[in-house]
Amino acid sequence: MDETASTRSTIEAYVTCAERRDWEGFGALLAEDVVYEMPQSRERIRGKPAYLQFNRDYPGDWHLEVRRIVADGRHAAAWIDARVGTEHQDACVWFELSDQGLISRITDYWPEPYDPPPGREHLVERW
Amino acid sequence: MDETASTRSTIEAYVTCAERRDWEGFGALLAEDVVYEMPQSRERIRGKPAYLQFNRDYPGDWHLEVRRIVADGRHAAAWIDARVGTEHQDACVWFELSDQGLISRITDYWPEPYDPPPGREHLVERW
Repeated sequence: MDETASTRSTIEAYVTCAERRDWEGFGALLAEDVVYEMPQSRERIRGKPAYLQFNRDYPGDWHLEVRRIVADGRHAAAWIDARVGTEHQDACVWFELSDQGLISRITDYWPEPYDPPPGREHLVERW
Repeated sequence: MDETASTRSTIEAYVTCAERRDWEGFGALLAEDVVYEMPQSRERIRGKPAYLQFNRDYPGDWHLEVRRIVADGRHAAAWIDARVGTEHQDACVWFELSDQGLISRITDYWPEPYDPPPGREHLVERW
C-alpha cells in the first residue's frame, strides 16, 4: 500500500472509529502530540489525551458519515455529514500525518447556513 | 503526469487564474456543464457561462491564496485563504474533474467565525 492509500485508509478508520465510539481504535490513529484546531472559534487542543477526551465528551447523539475523502501523500481532507437527531451539518476536515503514518494535525471547519447576498439571483438557483 | 498530478495542477491553475482575473485561462479549466454549489446558502450555478459571470462580477477587491491543495485521482480539495482588504476568510472547496480533466463540479464552503460553546475550556487554548 503506498503512502496515499495508507493515508486514505487511516482517515476512513478515523471516521469509522469515531462513529463507533471505538476510542481505543481512534487513539491508535493519533500521534501523541496531535494538534487539533477549530479556526472558526480559534480553539486549539494539544495532545492525544485531551483530544480523546474532547471527542469522548462531545455532547449529543452525534453520527458521522463520510461524503468524500481525498488523500494525497501525508495530507488528506474529509468532507463529512454530521448528524445529531434530524439536524445535519457538513464538516470540512484537513489532516496531516506524521512520518509514522499517525494523524499529527487536524483542522476542522463547521460551516453554517447563511442567506445568499442580493445581486446574483439571475445566476443561481436555490434548493 | 499521472491523473492525480494533473488534477493538482488544474486546481492550482484554477486559483491562480482567478487571482489574476485571467478569465480565459479560468474558463479553459471548466467543463461546459460545470455545476457550482454553495451548500450553506443552498445556491447552485449551472454551466460555464453563468459560473464565469459569477466570478467576474464577484464584488470587492478579493484575493485568493492556496493554503493547501489535496488531489486524489479526479477529486481534489482546496483550502484557500480569501482576503478582501484586511478581512480574511478561509474557504474549503471540493472539486470533481471529468474524464477530460476539466472541472465538472465545485462545492464551496465559507465557514464563518463563531463563539466556542461552554464546557470545554479545560481542554482548549484560544488564539
